[in-house]
Amino acid sequence: MQTPLKVAIVGSGLVGSLLAIYLKRAGHTVHVFDRSQDIRTIEFSGRSINLAMSNRGWKALDDLGLGEEVRKIAIPMDKRAIHPIGQELYYQYYGKEGESIYSISRGVLNRKMISLAEAEGVEFIFETKIWDLELASATLHTGESERGTWEDLDYDMVFGADGAFSRVRHRMQRQSMFNYSQEFLSLGYKELNIPANADGTHKLDKNSLHIWPRHNFMLIALPNLDGSFTCTLFMPFEGEKSFESLKDKETLEQFFAEHFPSTIDVIPELVNDFFKNPTSTLVTMKCYPWTYKDKVALIGDACHAIVPFYGHGMNAGFEDITILNELMQEYGDDWKRIFKEYQKSRKPNTDAIAELSYRNFMEMSSKTADENFLLKKKIEKRFSEKYPDKWMPLYSMVTFSHRPYSEALALGDWQNNIMNEVMKMDNIEQLWDTKAVENKILELLQKKHA
Amino acid sequence: MQTPLKVAIVGSGLVGSLLAIYLKRAGHTVHVFDRSQDIRTIEFSGRSINLAMSNRGWKALDDLGLGEEVRKIAIPMDKRAIHPIGQELYYQYYGKEGESIYSISRGVLNRKMISLAEAEGVEFIFETKIWDLELASATLHTGESERGTWEDLDYDMVFGADGAFSRVRHRMQRQSMFNYSQEFLSLGYKELNIPANADGTHKLDKNSLHIWPRHNFMLIALPNLDGSFTCTLFMPFEGEKSFESLKDKETLEQFFAEHFPSTIDVIPELVNDFFKNPTSTLVTMKCYPWTYKDKVALIGDACHAIVPFYGHGMNAGFEDITILNELMQEYGDDWKRIFKEYQKSRKPNTDAIAELSYRNFMEMSSKTADENFLLKKKIEKRFSEKYPDKWMPLYSMVTFSHRPYSEALALGDWQNNIMNEVMKMDNIEQLWDTKAVENKILELLQKKHA
Repeated sequence: MQTPLKVAIVGSGLVGSLLAIYLKRAGHTVHVFDRSQDIRTIEFSGRSINLAMSNRGWKALDDLGLGEEVRKIAIPMDKRAIHPIGQELYYQYYGKEGESIYSISRGVLNRKMISLAEAEGVEFIFETKIWDLELASATLHTGESERGTWEDLDYDMVFGADGAFSRVRHRMQRQSMFNYSQEFLSLGYKELNIPANADGTHKLDKNSLHIWPRHNFMLIALPNLDGSFTCTLFMPFEGEKSFESLKDKETLEQFFAEHFPSTIDVIPELVNDFFKNPTSTLVTMKCYPWTYKDKVALIGDACHAIVPFYGHGMNAGFEDITILNELMQEYGDDWKRIFKEYQKSRKPNTDAIAELSYRNFMEMSSKTADENFLLKKKIEKRFSEKYPDKWMPLYSMVTFSHRPYSEALALGDWQNNIMNEVMKMDNIEQLWDTKAVENKILELLQKKHA
Repeated sequence: MQTPLKVAIVGSGLVGSLLAIYLKRAGHTVHVFDRSQDIRTIEFSGRSINLAMSNRGWKALDDLGLGEEVRKIAIPMDKRAIHPIGQELYYQYYGKEGESIYSISRGVLNRKMISLAEAEGVEFIFETKIWDLELASATLHTGESERGTWEDLDYDMVFGADGAFSRVRHRMQRQSMFNYSQEFLSLGYKELNIPANADGTHKLDKNSLHIWPRHNFMLIALPNLDGSFTCTLFMPFEGEKSFESLKDKETLEQFFAEHFPSTIDVIPELVNDFFKNPTSTLVTMKCYPWTYKDKVALIGDACHAIVPFYGHGMNAGFEDITILNELMQEYGDDWKRIFKEYQKSRKPNTDAIAELSYRNFMEMSSKTADENFLLKKKIEKRFSEKYPDKWMPLYSMVTFSHRPYSEALALGDWQNNIMNEVMKMDNIEQLWDTKAVENKILELLQKKHA
């Protein structure tokens, strides 16, 4: 137990709600503010990508004993289901037998997390806009409108869990020596839907993350509990094949018939949803520092928003909380130290997952349909199964381990160099599962230690 | 002449005032706003680095016929004067005979520019804070305080020439798809002063940019018309040798005695100035887009703030104006097109000068005192004098030419690779001025075209 403080969290999203439970259990009074309505009272849809919870996310929940409760609303996906045009669909398993990532609807999880936090005694204050704050005194400024009268709310400490466009960070940004970057992709996304069968079953394999890779655009689908799939179409905003180019019903239907023929039967509301749902942007945001003395800290997307192609936005945010909690155990009431170590330890790792996420669009949209890539993966899988202590594939390090993201990125680059050497071997297509290939990898692995 | 518009420029600095003259001459009504007092009525000192005007800056002035007027307040510097510890000072010429950069006090130039603009009929509105604006209607919001009552001022077009911390950009930043980064160096700077001799002459060679290179810190001095030099000390904020470590008179005097012994006699007010003048930060800021339809455009530091080590902040800003003016000539009243082409053409070039400026700290603070580097420069100089059509040194391309910065950067990197090869030749220290070295460079140059 730490000395009890009065703590405000700005943002009632996934990270804000989970952090609230950790802080409440540590003995603090916790108020969570959100500008929006209580998500439990509204329909949340139309602009979401389903979450893929993996080991880092589960650890943050399991450490509180909340994992089981959340597993009830999660569907395991142990593989990618790749849908090429005019070919049979095929599967790529994510990890070893029994290893899965878990599809969860963002809305469903968020409602659950808020209810869990309330049950612990966390107080939620919805429909309350925090326009600004004073860093030195941890005072929040709230009011009806940005330019109207504000009320001051005093706290001992404030966490900004208010996402990529964080107001708390906005205040920190105005300080000198604050490094900041935001970079948008020229690619956007739109939510579509595959409804359940009449009997409530799924129209596609429910334990797969479905991908229709088409190089510079792609469609994905993640399963929901009710038998439906939440689909996401990623494509450029402008250009020949782009959101801009799909301007009417005819063009859209023709485009899907040409590029996604296998979806025609399963997305009945295509035209309706496409023109009703917004086209959302994708941003990578980095900043530093993340904390102000022992008063204010940013967490989750508010300090490291990433693109969704590794499915690690929430996982990285939850891992922030795990690390913060470990530091709370270690340094007790020394919040200055806790905040300093927290930002120092997390920054290189969130930079690494930002880089990995950015790169993974290429893997999902192009490489999953590339024979060379598939052969590489097969060789890697075979080797890592035989020598699990010598080789863990990058995807597994990121998704099924707790190794720091920055180490995974560096190791992955090194492994990639090795695999590029291996792929240069004569007749590799025939020899891929021979002892010669195995020995080549062992030899190249040896070199590093030399 | 274009169709006359009502144009507001936010910021009465160097770029704002010069742009005002260009727009006025093109037939527009021009109002320049500044939050500060008229710089002509106040003393401006204590936080400045003297400007080094070079060909790009001069062109923007000469095209208006204003170069001669400004040359009167400028001092040519044709070389660096390097001050090592315990060795004789030596010189490095910047270019060919007759090529110089020009030292100008920022305050003196700014006052001159405002007066020149007023003489053309530009209206300046000082002590007026522009808190925000509406992009779509080019409406400025002004008022006493940010949270007080605002007055609306309507224009046809608004330019943000309001520097690295631009309010105009701040509004654009809140739009979706706006890319932005700001990165601070861990290095700061402080202004010091070398006063004139009693008879008004300079205490050091007046036609040199003086450098005391000390690796991770350095002192520089640029001449003023009144016989004084404006000095700038660049050093880390924190660490062993840092601003933080120089906390009292004794430490400071001891530090200067150890590292800058030759300055003791010429900086009499060291202690006073050091503790009176602020320690300023150094930031690189990039963003995109720079314009909003045909309504709003950013210019100068407001869209590309760079570190000062190449002396090109103002030169790059003035070149923005040159390019904008060329586009005004080409596209007449099609401001949408003018703005689109302007940002597209300038962005790669201002990114390049940002990179070059960042790298140049290393050149100034370390390499100018490095024998290998000096030998390289000698070889390069000899070759470029003999084959001026085959080789223009990077510094000359940036400073004495109008070649786009991005081309200069790329060519410079290629030249650097060639010079690295040349430096590997046996006995290069003895053979540097022989035909063999010359032929080697010719051969390597040939390779590119192969």
